[in-house]
Amino acid sequence: MTNFIHRTQITVEWAHCDPVGMVHSQSVFTFFDTCTWQLFQAALGVPPEKLGATFAIMGFPLVGAGANFKAPVRFGDRVDTESNIGEFRRSSFKVEHRLFVKGALAVEGHETRVWVGRDATKPSGMSALPIPPDVIARLSA
Amino acid sequence: MTNFIHRTQITVEWAHCDPVGMVHSQSVFTFFDTCTWQLFQAALGVPPEKLGATFAIMGFPLVGAGANFKAPVRFGDRVDTESNIGEFRRSSFKVEHRLFVKGALAVEGHETRVWVGRDATKPSGMSALPIPPDVIARLSA
Amino acid sequence: MTNFIHRTQITVEWAHCDPVGMVHSQSVFTFFDTCTWQLFQAALGVPPEKLGATFAIMGFPLVGAGANFKAPVRFGDRVDTESNIGEFRRSSFKVEHRLFVKGALAVEGHETRVWVGRDATKPSGMSALPIPPDVIARLSA
Amino acid sequence: MTNFIHRTQITVEWAHCDPVGMVHSQSVFTFFDTCTWQLFQAALGVPPEKLGATFAIMGFPLVGAGANFKAPVRFGDRVDTESNIGEFRRSSFKVEHRLFVKGALAVEGHETRVWVGRDATKPSGMSALPIPPDVIARLSA
Repeated sequence: MTNFIHRTQITVEWAHCDPVGMVHSQSVFTFFDTCTWQLFQAALGVPPEKLGATFAIMGFPLVGAGANFKAPVRFGDRVDTESNIGEFRRSSFKVEHRLFVKGALAVEGHETRVWVGRDATKPSGMSALPIPPDVIARLSA
Repeated sequence: MTNFIHRTQITVEWAHCDPVGMVHSQSVFTFFDTCTWQLFQAALGVPPEKLGATFAIMGFPLVGAGANFKAPVRFGDRVDTESNIGEFRRSSFKVEHRLFVKGALAVEGHETRVWVGRDATKPSGMSALPIPPDVIARLSA
Repeated sequence: MTNFIHRTQITVEWAHCDPVGMVHSQSVFTFFDTCTWQLFQAALGVPPEKLGATFAIMGFPLVGAGANFKAPVRFGDRVDTESNIGEFRRSSFKVEHRLFVKGALAVEGHETRVWVGRDATKPSGMSALPIPPDVIARLSA
Repeated sequence: MTNFIHRTQITVEWAHCDPVGMVHSQSVFTFFDTCTWQLFQAALGVPPEKLGATFAIMGFPLVGAGANFKAPVRFGDRVDTESNIGEFRRSSFKVEHRLFVKGALAVEGHETRVWVGRDATKPSGMSALPIPPDVIARLSA
């Protein structure tokens, strides 16, 4: 938890909300996704749409995700986010996300992602690659 | 894991998919949501839109969710789903979901939900209620 | 309006709905999208994920879409859909969609799409192609 | 077109994009929705989540929407938006939206919405109300 932390603010839009006026859980996972791309942009200086070309990867698809919803998140709420890398392995990493509403922790979650390149020899069309040391260094700063 | 199991099939639509042609992770969480409503309908005989009125509840909002993605799920895939209650507590329960593509387990996940009623005296506008014994009995059959 | 008509049924899920319990308008546009892919599958016998490879196209991206919402569409509604090609031009076509709830027309809409191939010489990365006569014939039957 | 104009910027996130890397059309309709709520907030000084209570309305549901896609909108694009009321009628109004990418018009669209209150005597549960003159005045300024 001494890693680079990215903070931003996301407003809960009508389109994010469910029939009881709370954020759809799927919307929260899109918030996590956005926060991860921004975390990499903030640490590496590479915008999301150029990350693949810059590092010759296909992307960093999810292999795991989870969230605990601790307090309601509602239409119009300004959500303050905090994201950092929780752990690096050879070719995978865990991103930790915390969402706050009015200063109180509302959602705590994580994503596990793999650094992958295209690989036509694999049935999945991709294979895991080692995460470059420079990427690890910048996100651990 | 001796509980009532609900199975259905969901087709992965264009609208569910991401720039590498795989299902958006948020779409998988909507599949879980749909499977849970259908599980309750199958076990209780009450359609989703009548569950609130039938049991005098506001709903069963998520307090936790998670997924492990074990194999790619792609545009056009027919996803066979399997859902059951993993655990009942006093007012919360865990739903387990397994998604298969061509017979192979592609995603394994869970949701933790709370049986809640409206409660204007609480800041959240709701409070947890005990799950009715009959609901537990039918979903455990 | 003498063209091939495709009909299906879509259930309005919790994930589709907004804070007043009605379908989010964006969800309706995903219904249209799904109906168009199914219309082509029904008429041509080619599943959505194979359409690109079968016809050597990148796809048929939208250049226009519209909807008129005539009656509420709500959580749990079973929506009966009806879709057909309204007009073919050289490389574009219009799809007409009608959504019914309990027999009454609830939404009427359309999409205008272009038959495109990848074209690295264009800034957009794609160029319009003539729609194959056989495709037109089968969807006009 | 002499009406109050609201401008903002929306970044196209991974979660908004489709298998060819372009924005899902349904995402564009969520952009319109967000822009309309912001337009009202900017003109009236009332945040989205308080609009219903402030004006004693259920909301302003869509009765129509449309878009013309003139240039690709892609992952990572910063979309500059411009929204204004195109027309007021007694209880309905048209919102016009223009989305620009790098200064060029990429999407032009509109929404037609109705100012409605809850009305338990109607099958739809709501009825159209006259738009308050002050609302019209501020959005026409």
